[in-house]
Amino acid sequence: MENPLIAHIVKTINISAFEKQCIIKAFKSSTFRKKQNLLEEGQSCKYLFFVCKGCLRMFFINDKGAEQTIQFALENWWMTDNMAFETGKYAAFSIQAIEQTEVLYIDKQSLEVLLEEIPSLNKYFKNIYHRAYAASLMRIKYVFSMSKEDFYDHFCNSYPDFIQRIPQKILASFLGFTPEYLSELRKKKLTEKI
Amino acid sequence: MENPLIAHIVKTINISAFEKQCIIKAFKSSTFRKKQNLLEEGQSCKYLFFVCKGCLRMFFINDKGAEQTIQFALENWWMTDNMAFETGKYAAFSIQAIEQTEVLYIDKQSLEVLLEEIPSLNKYFKNIYHRAYAASLMRIKYVFSMSKEDFYDHFCNSYPDFIQRIPQKILASFLGFTPEYLSELRKKKLTEKI
Repeated sequence: MENPLIAHIVKTINISAFEKQCIIKAFKSSTFRKKQNLLEEGQSCKYLFFVCKGCLRMFFINDKGAEQTIQFALENWWMTDNMAFETGKYAAFSIQAIEQTEVLYIDKQSLEVLLEEIPSLNKYFKNIYHRAYAASLMRIKYVFSMSKEDFYDHFCNSYPDFIQRIPQKILASFLGFTPEYLSELRKKKLTEKI
Repeated sequence: MENPLIAHIVKTINISAFEKQCIIKAFKSSTFRKKQNLLEEGQSCKYLFFVCKGCLRMFFINDKGAEQTIQFALENWWMTDNMAFETGKYAAFSIQAIEQTEVLYIDKQSLEVLLEEIPSLNKYFKNIYHRAYAASLMRIKYVFSMSKEDFYDHFCNSYPDFIQRIPQKILASFLGFTPEYLSELRKKKLTEKI
C-alpha cells in the first residue's frame, strides 16, 4: 500500500522515486490511542503531524477552565501548534487523538533539511498553509455572522461524515455551544426531518 | 530607492538580479485614497495586494448590517480574499484603504507564471501563509480566552504605533467592542496612567 503522505504530496507536485524515499525516511510513524495527547499546552512543540488514519483535535484551556477545541485534523491533514513549532516557544495549544490515530511526524530540523533537499516541497506546503489560512478567515466570518443554528447546519452540510465521528461534548466546544444546547438542537433537527 | 516588495522577499530567499526584474515586471502599482475599496464582497477577487505604504482592512457586513473588520495589512503585508482569489468564487470580504495606500498587485495567472519562473518564491509565500495561519489560530485563542480589556491591552502592547493610525470605530469593530465601550476603556486607561 502506498504511503498516504506520498499519495497526498503527488496530488500537488511531481517528485522522483528517490525524493519519495527521502520523504519516507525523514518521517517517523506512531499510533496514539483515543484521548492520548500528542502535545500539551505549555510544553515545547517538537513535531509536525500528518494524519494517516484517525482524527486529532487542537484545544486550549479557556478562562473558565474548560477545554476549547479550535481545530480538527482528519486523514491527510496536518496539525501542530504552528507558532510554537516555528519559533521554539512553548505551545499555546494541546493536541489530542479523538479516536485511535496513526500519524507520520517530523521535527523542525529534519523538515528544514528535507525542504533543502526537495525544494518543490515548498510549493506543497505553501498550498497547505494557504488553504488553512483561507479556511481560518472564513471560520472567523462564520463565527461573527451566523446564528448558532446556521453555524451548526453549515458544519453538518460541509462535513456530514465527520459529525458522526466526534463526541458531542467536543463538537459543542468547537461550535461554541454548551453540550445541552447542541443536544437540544440535534433533537430539533431530527424532529424536523421526520 | 529599492522596491519594497523586493526588499521584503530578499529577507527570506536569495534571488538573482534577473529574477528581481521578473518580479518587478509582474506587479502593477496603484494608489488608493482613504476609504476607497480595493475589493467588494460579492465581486470576483482578481488581485493579491502587497502594501508598500499605508494600511488596508478586510471586513464583511454582519447579520446586523454592520461592518465587521477581521484583518489589517500594514506596510510589507499581503492582503486578498484568499479563498476567492484561489478558487475564483465571489469574495466573502471587502478590502478598503484606511488611509491613502500604495500597493503592488498581481492577478492569479501572472502569479502562477511567476512561481513557475522563480520556484524559490514558493518558499517565500510558504513562510508568509504559515505565519498568517499561525497568527489567525492565536487570534481565535485570544478571542475565546481573554476578557475584552485584556484583549485590548494585548493589542495595544503588540502594535503600539498601529493603534494610533486606526479610526476608533474600526478598531472597536475588530476587537468586537461597541465604539462606546472602546471610548470608555481608553478613558479608563488614560486615568490609570496619570
